[in-house]
Amino acid sequence: MSGSTSSPLKIGVLLSGSGTNLQAIIDRIEDGTLDASIELVVSSRPDAYGLKRAERHGLQTLTLSKEIYADPIMADEVIAAELKKHDVEYVIMAGYMRMVHAPILMLYPNKVVNLHPALLPSFKGAHAIQDAYDYGVKVTGVTVHFADDKYDCGPIIAQKALVVQEGWTVDELEKHIHAIEHTLYPNTIQLIAEGRVNVRDDGTVSISE
Amino acid sequence: MSGSTSSPLKIGVLLSGSGTNLQAIIDRIEDGTLDASIELVVSSRPDAYGLKRAERHGLQTLTLSKEIYADPIMADEVIAAELKKHDVEYVIMAGYMRMVHAPILMLYPNKVVNLHPALLPSFKGAHAIQDAYDYGVKVTGVTVHFADDKYDCGPIIAQKALVVQEGWTVDELEKHIHAIEHTLYPNTIQLIAEGRVNVRDDGTVSISE
Repeated sequence: MSGSTSSPLKIGVLLSGSGTNLQAIIDRIEDGTLDASIELVVSSRPDAYGLKRAERHGLQTLTLSKEIYADPIMADEVIAAELKKHDVEYVIMAGYMRMVHAPILMLYPNKVVNLHPALLPSFKGAHAIQDAYDYGVKVTGVTVHFADDKYDCGPIIAQKALVVQEGWTVDELEKHIHAIEHTLYPNTIQLIAEGRVNVRDDGTVSISE
Repeated sequence: MSGSTSSPLKIGVLLSGSGTNLQAIIDRIEDGTLDASIELVVSSRPDAYGLKRAERHGLQTLTLSKEIYADPIMADEVIAAELKKHDVEYVIMAGYMRMVHAPILMLYPNKVVNLHPALLPSFKGAHAIQDAYDYGVKVTGVTVHFADDKYDCGPIIAQKALVVQEGWTVDELEKHIHAIEHTLYPNTIQLIAEGRVNVRDDGTVSISE
């Protein structure tokens, strides 16, 4: 990989829950197929299991209290300062159940990456898998995109389709969506690490060879 | 195919333009892989090239004048009466640049089939391919669905994803979308002909074995 001659991409991971995508990123870093290093893990919830995963792998963590999060801009100022202090180059949202605001977005323009469990622009919002299932789509999938100041609206970096099999329960659909996430997300971060992801002037993303 | 012991599915085709999807259906009927017969082709425009294709294959055609179409409900009453007269069982919209209204929908509930050149519910409307291209999606596709009284909103029968390749022009995207249409649409009509397409009470579609 082209990153082999340069230093790993320094990332910060934002999460709120079990951290399965954090784990997928950690695993790919440890097996040498993702040229990144996790400089900081930020959790919006002190009881998030993702924090345990981070600590188990010796990663630095930051947990903000409910009181600080009560003012979203102030919270993001604190987070932005910590990301900067840790020399983070890209911010990876991994099950972070909050928006990122100007203090982070202005410090990391088109460098905050998010994952969505549907083929955007379909099924925005917090219940994408259930919504797609209820709609009865025959194809859904996963999107990796840059975050902006609107939910689920920034430039699309990568998408992967999933054929919904006849008779699947919503739980089965969810399991397959998550399996795609755990491959697509590290793969996409690796593209960024290789310097191959570029946002064009029109807001679309090109991937160079 | 299971239709081999029963009579072919009687369809009517509605079009407004060049009729490439009509041609795809005709070709599949003539090569024996689509167990349907086209009982009537309705064009909303007298100069539609699709009419020439229909006549070339000896199909009955109906063209309504602008004056009749000026009253959409009256136009659909005329069309519905003609479809019924020709014993049409399913109505196939194939580049028909108009909505179908109550007179047709009530005669053919969940039996009016439409094609959309995107993965619904993304990119509804008349410029789906361009809109998807401009949005910068990495995956788009084709949807076959039952029409209802809202644009591009009825139960989804089939979808097929298309990976947008780096560097494609919108014309290249369009070419690949149309190629998918010309396979997916006849395949889906064949599923209907085999009696395998069922709309559930919740408005989603199941395909039986």
